[in-house]
Amino acid sequence: MTITLHCFGESGNAYKAALALELSGLDWTPAYVDFFSGAARSPEYREMNVMGEVPVLQDGDVTLTQSGVIQMYVAEKSGKFGGTTPEEAREVMRWMFWDNHKMSSQAGTARFLMNFLPEDKRPKEVIGFLQGRLKAAYITLNAALEGRDWLVGDSITNADMSCCGYLFYPEPFGFDRAAWPNIDRWLSNISAQPGWKHPYDLMPGSPADRT
Amino acid sequence: MTITLHCFGESGNAYKAALALELSGLDWTPAYVDFFSGAARSPEYREMNVMGEVPVLQDGDVTLTQSGVIQMYVAEKSGKFGGTTPEEAREVMRWMFWDNHKMSSQAGTARFLMNFLPEDKRPKEVIGFLQGRLKAAYITLNAALEGRDWLVGDSITNADMSCCGYLFYPEPFGFDRAAWPNIDRWLSNISAQPGWKHPYDLMPGSPADRT
Repeated sequence: MTITLHCFGESGNAYKAALALELSGLDWTPAYVDFFSGAARSPEYREMNVMGEVPVLQDGDVTLTQSGVIQMYVAEKSGKFGGTTPEEAREVMRWMFWDNHKMSSQAGTARFLMNFLPEDKRPKEVIGFLQGRLKAAYITLNAALEGRDWLVGDSITNADMSCCGYLFYPEPFGFDRAAWPNIDRWLSNISAQPGWKHPYDLMPGSPADRT
Repeated sequence: MTITLHCFGESGNAYKAALALELSGLDWTPAYVDFFSGAARSPEYREMNVMGEVPVLQDGDVTLTQSGVIQMYVAEKSGKFGGTTPEEAREVMRWMFWDNHKMSSQAGTARFLMNFLPEDKRPKEVIGFLQGRLKAAYITLNAALEGRDWLVGDSITNADMSCCGYLFYPEPFGFDRAAWPNIDRWLSNISAQPGWKHPYDLMPGSPADRT
């Protein structure tokens, strides 16, 4: 049975789930959600996911939403990326929660406001505020990666694939990779994984389709 | 062995962990973190939690951070609040991730900006933006609670204790409980649980201490 992931290229949250699926070796296929035309907010979509968000995973009878839950499911099903001990498993969850709370929530919003809104509708004070919060997040992430190849243990886990969700995208949102040497090195470790793909190569849809 | 939770009354994230500990019946005690004097950002504190945040749980050799991870630990240790089937367990995690991403991150920030910053330093555009995002979150939560007493299953779980993290506080941040009948009813279900306590009664520290 092939797993379906409802997603679109611009979504860093979908990327976390898609990357975990792809690197796990599980059999999966993306189903394009035309988010920018409002597809995720239709009544039919809300029936599948009351939260009105991507990604959504369907695997036979199982329907899952929230990238973190889908990442946990990939770990359960493939035996990969969830940590190798109970302590590591908790550390993986810790970084996934931190990412959802402090990193991706701000990065996704800042990137949306700065790139996907018309120029005269971009709220400058909000963008500056989010960038300030993001700087604090980069400091934390860069410090945690000091002398380490991965956030948890000795190989890539869901912690890495959660925190990197927005960091490979080309659209500017105030993240200057060169300014954070440990993050820069760690992102290179991730993109050097066999089978790694850039979000716009892994999922359908990109800003290029709309120009 | 008594579990210690490093926390302070104003933190809705700490409240999620403290409430789970209290209602679980586990033996725990709070340790006050003087957050507003910068205690969570000191080098010593950062050594315990590189993220510079509360809550932090210590249970013998185990140190955990992130409210979601602590809630999972309480479920593991007490057998409560984690859902009664694998499907429920995933639903509980789903709402915990949603809360961290879409609800508490915005609610905590809006409440801080509107109440704990000097009046002339409150960024109006940011506050308005966060309240718009929060309104979308209230719509989702209210819809999910239609005809239900609890977010998952037939009794209180970590999903409820995560999503309610900021909703019992008296300081205004744009949440009008009366405007959301399903949320209102659900909050009454939570506060009717035997042993339930308000955040300022459950943890040390409140705005009253600083006036």
